[in-house]
Amino acid sequence: MENFFNPKSVAVIGVSESPANMAKNIVGNLIEFGFKGIIYQVGKTEGTLFSRKIYRSVLEIEDKIDLAVILTPAAAIPQLMEECGKKNIHNIVIESAGFGEFGEKGKELEKTILKIAKKYNIRFIGPNCIGTMDLASGLATSFVSFKNTFKRDGISIVSQSGGVGFSYITTLASENLGISKFASIGNKLNVNENDLLEYLIDDPETKIICIYLEGISNGRKLLEIAKRSPKPVLVQKANTGSHAKSIAESHTAALSSDDKVVDAALKQSGIARILDRETLVNYLKIMPLPKMRGNKLAIISRSGGHAIIAADVSEQEGFELAALNKNFLHDIEKHLRAKVIRLTNPIDIGDLFDYGVYAEIIEKTLKQPNIDGVVFMHAYFSETEGTPSRVLFNKIKDLSYKYDKPVGICIATDEDEFSRLRKELDYPLFNVPSAVVRALALSRDFYLKRSSVIARSEVTKQSPANNCTQGIATAASRPRNDKTAKILRTCLSQKRNPSFQEGMEIFKAYGIPIVKTIQAKNADEAVRAAAKIGYPVVMKISSQKISHKTDVGGVKLNIKNESQLREEHKAMMKTLFQTPSSLRKQGSRALTRDSRLRGNDNREVIIQPMLKKGWELILGAKQDPNFGPVVLAGLGGIFVEIFKDTTIRVVPIDKDEPAKMLSELKGYAILQGARGDKPYDIKAAEAAISKLARLIADFPEIKEIDINPFYVLHKGGGGFALDARVILFAPRPVKIKIDRKAG
Amino acid sequence: MENFFNPKSVAVIGVSESPANMAKNIVGNLIEFGFKGIIYQVGKTEGTLFSRKIYRSVLEIEDKIDLAVILTPAAAIPQLMEECGKKNIHNIVIESAGFGEFGEKGKELEKTILKIAKKYNIRFIGPNCIGTMDLASGLATSFVSFKNTFKRDGISIVSQSGGVGFSYITTLASENLGISKFASIGNKLNVNENDLLEYLIDDPETKIICIYLEGISNGRKLLEIAKRSPKPVLVQKANTGSHAKSIAESHTAALSSDDKVVDAALKQSGIARILDRETLVNYLKIMPLPKMRGNKLAIISRSGGHAIIAADVSEQEGFELAALNKNFLHDIEKHLRAKVIRLTNPIDIGDLFDYGVYAEIIEKTLKQPNIDGVVFMHAYFSETEGTPSRVLFNKIKDLSYKYDKPVGICIATDEDEFSRLRKELDYPLFNVPSAVVRALALSRDFYLKRSSVIARSEVTKQSPANNCTQGIATAASRPRNDKTAKILRTCLSQKRNPSFQEGMEIFKAYGIPIVKTIQAKNADEAVRAAAKIGYPVVMKISSQKISHKTDVGGVKLNIKNESQLREEHKAMMKTLFQTPSSLRKQGSRALTRDSRLRGNDNREVIIQPMLKKGWELILGAKQDPNFGPVVLAGLGGIFVEIFKDTTIRVVPIDKDEPAKMLSELKGYAILQGARGDKPYDIKAAEAAISKLARLIADFPEIKEIDINPFYVLHKGGGGFALDARVILFAPRPVKIKIDRKAG
Repeated sequence: MENFFNPKSVAVIGVSESPANMAKNIVGNLIEFGFKGIIYQVGKTEGTLFSRKIYRSVLEIEDKIDLAVILTPAAAIPQLMEECGKKNIHNIVIESAGFGEFGEKGKELEKTILKIAKKYNIRFIGPNCIGTMDLASGLATSFVSFKNTFKRDGISIVSQSGGVGFSYITTLASENLGISKFASIGNKLNVNENDLLEYLIDDPETKIICIYLEGISNGRKLLEIAKRSPKPVLVQKANTGSHAKSIAESHTAALSSDDKVVDAALKQSGIARILDRETLVNYLKIMPLPKMRGNKLAIISRSGGHAIIAADVSEQEGFELAALNKNFLHDIEKHLRAKVIRLTNPIDIGDLFDYGVYAEIIEKTLKQPNIDGVVFMHAYFSETEGTPSRVLFNKIKDLSYKYDKPVGICIATDEDEFSRLRKELDYPLFNVPSAVVRALALSRDFYLKRSSVIARSEVTKQSPANNCTQGIATAASRPRNDKTAKILRTCLSQKRNPSFQEGMEIFKAYGIPIVKTIQAKNADEAVRAAAKIGYPVVMKISSQKISHKTDVGGVKLNIKNESQLREEHKAMMKTLFQTPSSLRKQGSRALTRDSRLRGNDNREVIIQPMLKKGWELILGAKQDPNFGPVVLAGLGGIFVEIFKDTTIRVVPIDKDEPAKMLSELKGYAILQGARGDKPYDIKAAEAAISKLARLIADFPEIKEIDINPFYVLHKGGGGFALDARVILFAPRPVKIKIDRKAG
Repeated sequence: MENFFNPKSVAVIGVSESPANMAKNIVGNLIEFGFKGIIYQVGKTEGTLFSRKIYRSVLEIEDKIDLAVILTPAAAIPQLMEECGKKNIHNIVIESAGFGEFGEKGKELEKTILKIAKKYNIRFIGPNCIGTMDLASGLATSFVSFKNTFKRDGISIVSQSGGVGFSYITTLASENLGISKFASIGNKLNVNENDLLEYLIDDPETKIICIYLEGISNGRKLLEIAKRSPKPVLVQKANTGSHAKSIAESHTAALSSDDKVVDAALKQSGIARILDRETLVNYLKIMPLPKMRGNKLAIISRSGGHAIIAADVSEQEGFELAALNKNFLHDIEKHLRAKVIRLTNPIDIGDLFDYGVYAEIIEKTLKQPNIDGVVFMHAYFSETEGTPSRVLFNKIKDLSYKYDKPVGICIATDEDEFSRLRKELDYPLFNVPSAVVRALALSRDFYLKRSSVIARSEVTKQSPANNCTQGIATAASRPRNDKTAKILRTCLSQKRNPSFQEGMEIFKAYGIPIVKTIQAKNADEAVRAAAKIGYPVVMKISSQKISHKTDVGGVKLNIKNESQLREEHKAMMKTLFQTPSSLRKQGSRALTRDSRLRGNDNREVIIQPMLKKGWELILGAKQDPNFGPVVLAGLGGIFVEIFKDTTIRVVPIDKDEPAKMLSELKGYAILQGARGDKPYDIKAAEAAISKLARLIADFPEIKEIDINPFYVLHKGGGGFALDARVILFAPRPVKIKIDRKAG
């Protein structure tokens, strides 16, 4: 990879003397950025440009070439790559467009160049990109002309989009944040974000890594690399739109859209997700400062209004405005003529015009053990107070590092002063009160999360036997559960998904408690089953095709005796399997829209005991195309339907993760026993989540699992799977869908 | 008010020759801004400054003085105001601090100056402010030195905080947005935001009004003025923190925090709420453009990545990326060498390097009838494409006005180019893709909301008989309900709140359906009551002191016969009135914390019929200290407790407003009949909200009302108040609180 950023020689292919030629901008940029190696120019026609020869082919060049950069029509590229291969060039940047993004013909071309790359052992970036940049080597291969006005420092950028990458660079430049390396990866046919991430983690110049992606090449690998990174990794993942949602066969799939999984996965791996420009800039400004290690903030402001705005945002961000030691302000007051500041946090220093006292207040605040960070808000005009302000800012910088706590400086001043200071001061400056507070919150959240990710990854490194996580080994390292394997084999051979009963058997095999369930083909069998289980019982239709059984009249609760059971059985069969017109009269709207069920179903029901009062959860798992197995939990019924109150993790998960998942739910208070109710058996739900995570990790042939509901009784009573829905990869798609929402 | 901005003569009081003197900055600013009137200087000591005389008192000045600006120690101000009064000065700006914000002594001083102002018919701004500014008259009275680098245009600013006001000005300056007038109102003892809003609405120079507030002086008046404003009014209301929440005696009060009411009130009056700097700038940039009249957006981008980001945000903001007419792009393709753009929205023009075609595409897009607005995203380097880009932007400006649709331009370029263009171009420019899309959404939402507010206010103007709103007249214009008035009179004379029974009677008097309820002092009475009502029945404790009756065991549902009723009555009395230690065993945690209930309560219960399946809503109303009467609705039980799913309006409300309120609830889908359930009687809830709004408006002696629950049956079945809680202003505070949450 080193040759993509620090080659000794570069051949720019596609150059011509024509004024419209774009490839010559690449050479122009290399010259502008002071490239330290040798530049060769290659084009169809011999000629001279930048007082340099244009060769007809790389094969004409005598010296060794470390990197080729190609910008020609797409069709010419296979031949040019062949020549590069013959010339022993192993690194190529292909900037040309016209590949996979332009239909079938382009896709064919992609296959061709991948083949050539394999043949010659070539690694290439692109196609359809604006190349790479390295401020240390002076490499700059964009076909868009750049002026080298960039500050050199430790931020490296990988961007799938050239345009967005370009915006990152200009944003960083305008904030005076220093860049190390840049790579635009375009269609990322060969080199992808993971290759570059690994390289940048090892790159001594890079301190922070920013990645912009529209699609993720290998999510699981991304997570694994990021987890090991000692450097902060920031990812902006666009393309979150609904059109990207996979077609869902289960609740779990419907509830875990691609973007929700992305979000969970990034969090788990300690990656900071960038949602917009403000977040990006806030992260980049705050990360070089000492860490915000806790929740206690002090606000010191020259304007009461700014203090109030900052206090509002502090509350939103969950900061505590800790009380300040009384002696501390007492000390300060000694220096003052009159009592003009009050013992509050925020501290309003608006009536105090002494820069020495400002610094003293900031220092004394930083010294307080119950303060984790400080916001200092300063409003001034450069003309009158520019000089003392700048002295103060430098003093604050020293204090921040001395006490190893962040001080976020937010200034309100004229634009020129702000621009100038941003460039001159080697310390981040904010000019929006909400931004400085949010930046400190990002620091707090990032480092808290990150330290737990790193701590865990340390544990993993030290004990390879206990790989991945406590309690959950990977599929590879653990024997597959025999019973489950057998059931799935049978299903796959019969090209069908597991039945309800088989699903429940799988859960049982994994130690997930299931409710006692007996299948019954007719009323007589139902009566026998109920006698075995004991009244009161619940009767449900056993169809695989109905995901919302309650909605269509397929569930009857609290059946108390045989005669009621017979009556309800008759009624249910009538509701579910009679003609649409009569159904419509009864209001079973959902069913009338699909008549395929009639007569085709096996009409089996299941009998279960009627349980005591409990809460319905939904637990689920699926194989995500990007990140592999994931688990999901939510409060069942209307909570999940209407409030979409769910939580997701990529598997494997830690032992303590199920508890964290449940506590993230908005409705968690219900499980804890809201409004005088007793608490529910949260531990039982946690255990089931852990086991479900094992199951989905062990059997990659399973596409989706729903346990809906997983019914938890009051604390100590346990929890039970009341239903099972297991969907396999491509057995035979279940086509009949009655549900309107999950379908 | 005119003299605060356009006086013919100004006396600056507090000036001295001392270098530390701050008042002389005011004179300096007046000179810097080229004030068109005459400046007089007044100070304790005679002298010369700016080659002008310092008078010892305004009384020494012979000419008429239109405006005095005072910056002296607070204690000197009463005397100075007296002199101003004698000099017939009727407008004063008091910039000095040291008043109400500094304790009791300052508050006394405030009373004194208010008295003097009344005596001499003086209107004053401040104290504790940085004065006023008017770019037309050249008035600039801040004691902070300003450079006059501001663009003059139609944005006027009123700010309670000097520092925040100053930030507004610098923000506008950096965005090259033009200012008309500015007023910092500080403690707003005399002139407040409403006075200035009225003035600015009539001011021909002002086109847009921005107000920053930490406290609202008279919310109801603010709404009335804003509703009539033909100009956009933007309000940033800070100080939203939890410490500002009023102490709540009812659910309604607990659920309608000050800030929630502010939010509802501002929306109702067509005021745009500013939440942060980005929103402010987005509004100010987008408002001068043609309005976004609908939901259909087209995105045209030179960078695929920016197009994707903009599309993501468009989806979040509820825009539809409408399909474009096929002929349209067919037309365009004729001009092109190769087929390099596809028939999609976003349109990616990245491979098209022809500025003429860009303009043509934008024009043809604007022509499409199914497009309401366009986002144009342009990435370029000034050096290479600066000139054609600027020509294009001017062309876009013309097209936007020609087709009367907004085109949001977002550029990615070097910082200097962006800075320069912002200053040179008379059209707003964005540089963040999310911001341009959000700005168009603000335009759409603002004008949609605003047009309905204006339409309604037109109706009101035309038919004064039908004042305020259809269906709900104000208290003043309508006779008070006799029965309610009588109940409240009795309660007030007995210094108590209405009982449950009285509350229900009030509801009945207002046409809010109530469930049949009989009060019973003991088990025998309860049995008689149940016989009258008919089994099954519900029994509830009748205490005024318990707001969550279910939580403490004070509600028993579905009692089927006399023997069960007697049994349950006994059990309930035991649970509620026995000793804490035995209660603890039974798990009634809430009750054990307050033993005052024991023995003191009248032990009455109420008997109601057991209703059919329905949903619980909570309806409520209260007198808000800022905005007067408000109504509230939410889904009851855990929904309101855990999800805080409520909606609020300031009364009076329109006929169609209750329906809108309910449809705003996250759980609205439940009322519509989620998951196969039948729809509930939404109309019944709407009617009750209307009537509750009348009730709270008619009786300002009522502080808070809870109807919790208002129980709605399935559609057509109606809805009923099952409980009543009416709290009056200061009858005798109800001290005993058992509830942990609403308390």
